[in-house]
Amino acid sequence: MPEPADTVRFRQWLAVAAEEARAGLDEGGVPIGAALIGRDGAVLGRGRNRRVQDGDPSAHAETAAFRAAGRQRGYTGTTMVTTLSPCWFCSGLVRQFGISRVVVGESRTFTGGHGWLAEHGVAVTVLDDPDCAAMMAEFVRDRPDLWNEDIGAATDG
Amino acid sequence: MPEPADTVRFRQWLAVAAEEARAGLDEGGVPIGAALIGRDGAVLGRGRNRRVQDGDPSAHAETAAFRAAGRQRGYTGTTMVTTLSPCWFCSGLVRQFGISRVVVGESRTFTGGHGWLAEHGVAVTVLDDPDCAAMMAEFVRDRPDLWNEDIGAATDG
Repeated sequence: MPEPADTVRFRQWLAVAAEEARAGLDEGGVPIGAALIGRDGAVLGRGRNRRVQDGDPSAHAETAAFRAAGRQRGYTGTTMVTTLSPCWFCSGLVRQFGISRVVVGESRTFTGGHGWLAEHGVAVTVLDDPDCAAMMAEFVRDRPDLWNEDIGAATDG
Repeated sequence: MPEPADTVRFRQWLAVAAEEARAGLDEGGVPIGAALIGRDGAVLGRGRNRRVQDGDPSAHAETAAFRAAGRQRGYTGTTMVTTLSPCWFCSGLVRQFGISRVVVGESRTFTGGHGWLAEHGVAVTVLDDPDCAAMMAEFVRDRPDLWNEDIGAATDG
């Protein structure tokens, strides 16, 4: 379990991700945000789901944040903070590149690969943030078509 | 095991991926190529690793091909063909979006998540193509720095 001092830091980082998510919602997109945090606590990159905005199905929030950070020599000591439990794609990103820690806003509306990451040595903290959960629950209710498309769960048509 | 007729098709698709890989090599990039093939056999999207060319560490070949295909309602019946065994990031992509089949050029120089995908119901064929293996082996020998960076195995500096 993280120390209380860690939780304060994690919540500050989550605020960056949540700001991205809200910006995405305002743009008519999928409201998921993320940031890659350096070992010194600085934001290396931040991003949001851009499926709708860019017509890019690979622009999940975590992948967008990772992309925004540009080429890095390594990821030891970095943290991926995300408003929602990372899907298999973004979990694979964390595992492949050796990102040390994942901080998850909530995993009520969707449970991705954060448990798998913990099994493979990634430090995982789920903050269970009610604001993140409420924003996502509302989106899933209002736009099930878009949400299912975003996680590959749409009925093929 | 695939039927001989499938293997002919798979090799035709691999030729598209290999063409992408060779173009990447000519650009000074990581020589890995991929294509997403529709259920009717048409190329939905093709791409190559663009870490060097675009400074984009998320532009692995499979992810680039997926991106190039744009938004799709679903991926049932599609095939991801790639010159090299997909890393965890790109394997996660295949699993999350329900891509039905993966055709791998070779897995000698790098073994990613294709076994994990097979365990989770993805049809996997490894063609063990000597040309793909030779191109990749040469690249790994000549540019170990770039290769390790691309798979998150660089020594942090």
